[in-house]
Amino acid sequence: MQQVIDFILEIDKLKGITRKTRPLGLDRLENSAEHSWQIALLAASLAPYADPGMDMARVIGMLLVHDIGEIDTGDTMVYVEEGLAERKAAERVAVERIFGKLPAAQRDQFMALWEEFEASETAESRFANAADRAMPVLLNLANDGQSWKEHDIAHARVVGRIKGQIQDGCPALWDYLEARLEEERSKGWFGMRS
Amino acid sequence: MQQVIDFILEIDKLKGITRKTRPLGLDRLENSAEHSWQIALLAASLAPYADPGMDMARVIGMLLVHDIGEIDTGDTMVYVEEGLAERKAAERVAVERIFGKLPAAQRDQFMALWEEFEASETAESRFANAADRAMPVLLNLANDGQSWKEHDIAHARVVGRIKGQIQDGCPALWDYLEARLEEERSKGWFGMRS
Repeated sequence: MQQVIDFILEIDKLKGITRKTRPLGLDRLENSAEHSWQIALLAASLAPYADPGMDMARVIGMLLVHDIGEIDTGDTMVYVEEGLAERKAAERVAVERIFGKLPAAQRDQFMALWEEFEASETAESRFANAADRAMPVLLNLANDGQSWKEHDIAHARVVGRIKGQIQDGCPALWDYLEARLEEERSKGWFGMRS
Repeated sequence: MQQVIDFILEIDKLKGITRKTRPLGLDRLENSAEHSWQIALLAASLAPYADPGMDMARVIGMLLVHDIGEIDTGDTMVYVEEGLAERKAAERVAVERIFGKLPAAQRDQFMALWEEFEASETAESRFANAADRAMPVLLNLANDGQSWKEHDIAHARVVGRIKGQIQDGCPALWDYLEARLEEERSKGWFGMRS
């Protein structure tokens, strides 16, 4: 039991890892713990758009654990592509450390969920990755492009960076986002950097 | 799809609903969204202590949605027992409003999870309630009794309020907490109000 408690107190630190998006109507930056909660519910709500037979419990499990490595590495915006391999290697070291606090069976279960999400090969992990990629876009679309403006991200860069994974994991979600992004293109919500 | 998006943006507000506990090492109060994430992982990590055959996906589903009504009502500390029936009625109105943004099948699924958690009759919901009750105690035990001191809560009041649900839902978790609470009893982490 003490191992479980040590783990759950260690992951408390994810509440202090900030992202680039702000919750709607709040001045502060979003943190990775509340983001993980929201995308788990986004995936559950998108169940009608998932392939029949998809294991939604595994999708949700992946989304709840996928950012825990950021406790050691911090969050990096999806548009920063330099150093990606090094960051992923550092995240793997981090989750091995953190999941390693748990008894072996739980450690292995969480590690397998993390690996599955990162590999993004199964239908479940591709669906989970689509939800993760879509959420900051949905917040930006409701927030006058807040993080795109603050970080000078051009429309073409948003589309170029997110289209593949969202279209692959949840085509109906991409159709929705593509139309919304096109509608808002002229509104000054985007930066210039492409 | 627009219904799903409307729902997921509405529940963004849970990130602004503050609780009485502070994340470890942070000055701000915890919010109900990150709390929901943490207890979902607490329950998943406690799986070895659950009855064989327990549907852990339902436990996690309940924990992800159980606080969403607080978007309209706010969070109330578990030690405030006055007005409980009225608060629960108001939370029900709130979740009917919020889940009602979703297509019927998803609305009904989330409503059923919320109802099951509130009724606390099934093994899954009793386990989920135990995780929810235990988490602020675990944070207080790691935080020098922060919210007990700030709200003047006596040791006997902590034990009296949480013992039944935690012991019922996850006896091994209660055994751990009872011993820890007894160990720390003399440390000045508790208030006087019983």
